[in-house]
Amino acid sequence: MTKPAIKLAAPDLQHLTGDIFVAAGMPEAAAAKVAEVLVWANLRGADSHGVQRIPRYVELIDDGAMNPRPAMRVAFETPAASLIEADRAAGPVAMSFATTEAVRKARGSGIGLALVRQTTHTAAQGYYTAMAARDGMAALSGSCSSPNMIYYGARAAGVSTSPLSIAVPGAARDPLVLDMATGVVAMGKIVHARRTGQRLEPGWAVDAEGKPTTDPARAALPLPLGGPKGSGLSLMIECIASLITANPLLADTFEGKPEGEKHRQNAFLIAIDIARFCDLDLFQDNVRRLVAGLKSLPRQPDVDEVLMPGERGSRMLARRSRDGIPIPAATWSELGRVARRFGLSMPTNADGSWTAQ
Amino acid sequence: MTKPAIKLAAPDLQHLTGDIFVAAGMPEAAAAKVAEVLVWANLRGADSHGVQRIPRYVELIDDGAMNPRPAMRVAFETPAASLIEADRAAGPVAMSFATTEAVRKARGSGIGLALVRQTTHTAAQGYYTAMAARDGMAALSGSCSSPNMIYYGARAAGVSTSPLSIAVPGAARDPLVLDMATGVVAMGKIVHARRTGQRLEPGWAVDAEGKPTTDPARAALPLPLGGPKGSGLSLMIECIASLITANPLLADTFEGKPEGEKHRQNAFLIAIDIARFCDLDLFQDNVRRLVAGLKSLPRQPDVDEVLMPGERGSRMLARRSRDGIPIPAATWSELGRVARRFGLSMPTNADGSWTAQ
Repeated sequence: MTKPAIKLAAPDLQHLTGDIFVAAGMPEAAAAKVAEVLVWANLRGADSHGVQRIPRYVELIDDGAMNPRPAMRVAFETPAASLIEADRAAGPVAMSFATTEAVRKARGSGIGLALVRQTTHTAAQGYYTAMAARDGMAALSGSCSSPNMIYYGARAAGVSTSPLSIAVPGAARDPLVLDMATGVVAMGKIVHARRTGQRLEPGWAVDAEGKPTTDPARAALPLPLGGPKGSGLSLMIECIASLITANPLLADTFEGKPEGEKHRQNAFLIAIDIARFCDLDLFQDNVRRLVAGLKSLPRQPDVDEVLMPGERGSRMLARRSRDGIPIPAATWSELGRVARRFGLSMPTNADGSWTAQ
Repeated sequence: MTKPAIKLAAPDLQHLTGDIFVAAGMPEAAAAKVAEVLVWANLRGADSHGVQRIPRYVELIDDGAMNPRPAMRVAFETPAASLIEADRAAGPVAMSFATTEAVRKARGSGIGLALVRQTTHTAAQGYYTAMAARDGMAALSGSCSSPNMIYYGARAAGVSTSPLSIAVPGAARDPLVLDMATGVVAMGKIVHARRTGQRLEPGWAVDAEGKPTTDPARAALPLPLGGPKGSGLSLMIECIASLITANPLLADTFEGKPEGEKHRQNAFLIAIDIARFCDLDLFQDNVRRLVAGLKSLPRQPDVDEVLMPGERGSRMLARRSRDGIPIPAATWSELGRVARRFGLSMPTNADGSWTAQ
């Protein structure tokens, strides 16, 4: 039996999250950014990338892997590119800075690249590409971490579930945002299934011996999307994000180096300033035509509506902004433990029916 | 019963291909480039993207969709980006030019973008990213065409099997080259299966009514890789390659516009000049460490060796460069028809055992 989820208003959850990270040593602005990105994931229904990560983030700060007050800097730049030394910044802090950099470079050069060296968990990749898309950019971003996914043909972790996200301005307010793991599922989804007790689908994961399993408790590693395609994509993201920044994650782990045991991530974000190449209104009108055409296609029997990348998340965001964010009881009690440690009080449930212990 | 394949030396096949395209109206250099790219695909074992395309390319020239003497030009440029108006050039001609442009821009700016408007079938996408990787670049390229793949949730063609390719310099001579369709398989693979009579794997394709089939003769459309991920990737490639260049392919088809019935493609290629950000020797040494680590992982029971993206193709290229390229009898006889039309003689088989009729 899993306990029922409680429901919380987004501003309350964001406030609590920000307070936790300030208490954990971050400056106000950085803590607010982390809170915004985590709660954004919850609002969009990507709970595996939301506030359930807080205890882990705090643990990363405790053990020195995440730096709450990083000396983040542009280590090298050209008119079109920046290499950012993130100094173990929280992923949302480093990635938001990188997005701003890439957009600024794209404004000047048509295309802009931000390479992010030595950050930590980048959270929901789609947040950053959507942020650039709201600035009129087509944006493409990937990030990578220590091995946590099967490389095609192997029985052990060879690559990470590196997310890949691409976003463009939509016809109206919301951008189109593709945000996909290079695994069949993101590791966060398996962790989330463990927490909620739901079984995995066949083909999602293998156990510690590399054998297929649907038991979330036995699942050790996700399988790559489409076999060699998913693990190949992840490998190429490592080559771009980690090897161009001379901060190899996978090789250090394979060779048993001490750095290979630490939590660290690298990332890249590319922005293309659409208005430099074509009229942005024309672009958006062409998106409208494209979306209208796809939505008019004959549908599979069990499908009510053909959805665009990110559309389900946008609708969920509207609903959860209005109705509150459900938090599984297990996650809530973990958040309570973290809050108590910092002497923080937990917010009351949106409808008043639950109060933090 | 399918007739046995004949075998041809690569230079002979390249020579024949070049002669055909010169006879079809291309300048020598353009014809040689098309021949090089098609035969490269055959050498690497990607026969679906090799010389079996020749009859279709000639047909495209006949009906005016492919321009053998295009007025290709850079329509707009910044220090980091070029928008190329390809004027219906053969894909290999436009894409090779675009790659040179993107690499040149990357040398100056760290990153370079080439957008390619109104080209035709781009052939093996990996050729261009590998070309850039040999120049020390990390390269990322995608292209799109009229709808020929299921969009997730729909029963009809909504997107194309848009290839996505990423390449980086390898540890030694050969780059790592990921070249994947956003479909479970490329349309060319289904066409190739029709030609050789082999059955499709379940989950590859649907028939004209949108129902699953393994019969290559009934297969009408491939399914997207990983459902919404593959069709989402393809959609985003259309947004970047076609909508930023203001040359929408999918929407024109949906709306029944005359342009929507014509064969045309758009593409993009992004190059990152690695040496601007880190020492290229260090990068390549880190690739060596990464590859060594992956190859040392424990393997699945039925797997002899863990392979890198493009490695199978590189080995096939070495073997076929030495032993010749096998051409299915059906393809050979179609090539013979094209050659005869232009009054060209077909080359003798590499080992003398077969002669063109």
